[in-house]
Amino acid sequence: MSEPNLELLPEGTVCTPQGFSAGAVHAAVRTDWDKLDVGLLSSEAPCIAAAVTTRNRVPGASLVISRQHLSSGRAQAVIANAGCANASTGKRGLEDAIRLAQAAGEKLAIDPHLVVVASTGVIGTYLPMERILPGIEKIALSAGGGMDLARAIMTTDTRPKHVAVRSAGWSIGGVVKGVGMIHPNMATMLCFITTDASVRQPFLQQALKAAVDDSFNMIDVDSDTSPDDIALVLANGLAGGEPIDEGHAESQAFAAGLKQVCVYLAKAMVADAEGATKTIEAQVGGAASDDDARRAARAIISSLGVKTAVYGKDPNWGRVLSAIGNSGAEVQEARVKLFIGTPNGGEICLFEGVPQKFDAAQAKGCLEPASVRFRIDLGLGDGAATAWGSDLTEDYVRLNSEYTT
Amino acid sequence: MSEPNLELLPEGTVCTPQGFSAGAVHAAVRTDWDKLDVGLLSSEAPCIAAAVTTRNRVPGASLVISRQHLSSGRAQAVIANAGCANASTGKRGLEDAIRLAQAAGEKLAIDPHLVVVASTGVIGTYLPMERILPGIEKIALSAGGGMDLARAIMTTDTRPKHVAVRSAGWSIGGVVKGVGMIHPNMATMLCFITTDASVRQPFLQQALKAAVDDSFNMIDVDSDTSPDDIALVLANGLAGGEPIDEGHAESQAFAAGLKQVCVYLAKAMVADAEGATKTIEAQVGGAASDDDARRAARAIISSLGVKTAVYGKDPNWGRVLSAIGNSGAEVQEARVKLFIGTPNGGEICLFEGVPQKFDAAQAKGCLEPASVRFRIDLGLGDGAATAWGSDLTEDYVRLNSEYTT
Repeated sequence: MSEPNLELLPEGTVCTPQGFSAGAVHAAVRTDWDKLDVGLLSSEAPCIAAAVTTRNRVPGASLVISRQHLSSGRAQAVIANAGCANASTGKRGLEDAIRLAQAAGEKLAIDPHLVVVASTGVIGTYLPMERILPGIEKIALSAGGGMDLARAIMTTDTRPKHVAVRSAGWSIGGVVKGVGMIHPNMATMLCFITTDASVRQPFLQQALKAAVDDSFNMIDVDSDTSPDDIALVLANGLAGGEPIDEGHAESQAFAAGLKQVCVYLAKAMVADAEGATKTIEAQVGGAASDDDARRAARAIISSLGVKTAVYGKDPNWGRVLSAIGNSGAEVQEARVKLFIGTPNGGEICLFEGVPQKFDAAQAKGCLEPASVRFRIDLGLGDGAATAWGSDLTEDYVRLNSEYTT
Repeated sequence: MSEPNLELLPEGTVCTPQGFSAGAVHAAVRTDWDKLDVGLLSSEAPCIAAAVTTRNRVPGASLVISRQHLSSGRAQAVIANAGCANASTGKRGLEDAIRLAQAAGEKLAIDPHLVVVASTGVIGTYLPMERILPGIEKIALSAGGGMDLARAIMTTDTRPKHVAVRSAGWSIGGVVKGVGMIHPNMATMLCFITTDASVRQPFLQQALKAAVDDSFNMIDVDSDTSPDDIALVLANGLAGGEPIDEGHAESQAFAAGLKQVCVYLAKAMVADAEGATKTIEAQVGGAASDDDARRAARAIISSLGVKTAVYGKDPNWGRVLSAIGNSGAEVQEARVKLFIGTPNGGEICLFEGVPQKFDAAQAKGCLEPASVRFRIDLGLGDGAATAWGSDLTEDYVRLNSEYTT
């Protein structure tokens, strides 16, 4: 993933690119929380904006308003809250989202149509505006506020998830919340990305789409979107220079940097998935097409059979093969090779047209580390893709059955 | 479901229709089991046969052979084993399946091509033929052997699942094993149905397809098929009369009886699903089409968010709405009505375009019974469908992570 001219900054935040500031406050969106729960992100200059949003057919009210605001291709700030998704809230939800944008716009002295509104949490409850609006007034913005914003958008996340990459001329910072889009029904994912690079809008949208396809969309299942999901990138152009567009000398580096940020954050989501003990990586090659490879890779990491087998440290490769067979990808069993990664970076062949003899203890050892890797060669073509998932544990069930409305 | 002229026999088995006998033996397919694990079903007369089988692209070897045998539209016996799926076993697996058919054919003195072979259990291990073949010789067939067959095909099932219906002129018996096709990667489902009705093959195939669509396919998810799944019906015609075909006076009653058997068995599978404490029924009406209704109903009962909320007795209806939004069905949130069934057969409205005020304790009370019902009116058309799922519990994770290869 890493590009030679890009420096990865694990401590980086959305405030790493110049001209961005952030802050957060505890507004008691949920009265049983004492954490930061409302955050604000602002750019000193208007930004070119691009976003990829949920495909859910009952989009949340905050997202509906944000889509309207983003239709201009420009934005300058994000107001975000955790604890309430503001989804399935009808007309009142839309009015609340508009008021949030207005409140942020007033505070920042910018047009409220330049404010993106993002909400995450329980579906079907109204935002406690009487607590959130005074909270917004109290937010202190600073260039060091990126971590507070990262914390403010967390729900069942156990840690803030953020990163930045830096090139010679510009940087890209990102923050995400989400316990995994593998748990699609909980309004799970918000992702904000900032950059000081100067970028043209169509190129930014296209680069974001490509980056999301290889990152957040590779940790999902078919029914993968929650009412409020959004991945947003704001480019304020303060790094100067000719705007990056297709054919620009920096276009490949910028796209690579954006993808690096998205993949890093996507893997961080999976690693922090609810109740998870392990990350499962599925590398599929030799597929008839890239699309087939994506289908097969996602089917593996979405399979409850695979997830529970990995949790139980059982090298039950038959479930991996069965998941591929169910994926819709073209498969000819006699051509399939299936490997599991060893802790030292090597691999063991488990299946090659027929079951292979392998050392059961050694295979079980491959399931000990926090990251487990399957590699599959379908033997049909050049299609390739990688997907990441979490294992499924009793704690996942406990968290989700006790997560109360 | 029930037809006035059909009598449901909960104690009925595949031996209820005349001319069918069954038996089973403990052959130690798995050396750690002491249960019956190889079963035989036989008809005294050759049967018209119809089957619906897995869409998995890596079908098991036993199924591959059975599909060849069933291509004639005729069969007379089934040899079935639990403990080993005989899937992903290559050429040796195919040879083993052929030998099973030959052994059963010899024992019954019938053409081995009239024998259907069915295997369920762990994927990627070979059948222990040295134990199974002597086992087959020892099986004692009788008209009372239906329960033994039902037990022999169980894997993680906790109880045998069987039923029959009887009309004035004929009867239909059925047996199924499966912890739910909601857990699709474990070679989960075998279903054998017998009838003494005289039926033409094309009509039998069509009636089976329709019955499976409304039963076993309504407890599944998109990636729903395991390598060995089969629903088979054998009609030996001993009840006599003109063969049932479209337009026959009995055609509707027969199709209704077949559907009743399939729905009964499908619900029995869900009720016995691994680790489950509750059955979730989703009734969707008012959809733009029946297909949309099916999508929405299946999305609800497949959602981990819904499953865990039901397990936790949390009336988190937002997850139901979000699942519908993800299903691909046409949805206009403002037109959606969502109800939960009360224990006394009534219902409470939770959502009608906007969240409804409801008594939280009463709603929670709706989640106490072993069967929980959601009814959704999409307000768009006449499409309707019902789906059944299980809740998701810590025990599911435990069973599947400890289920060892």
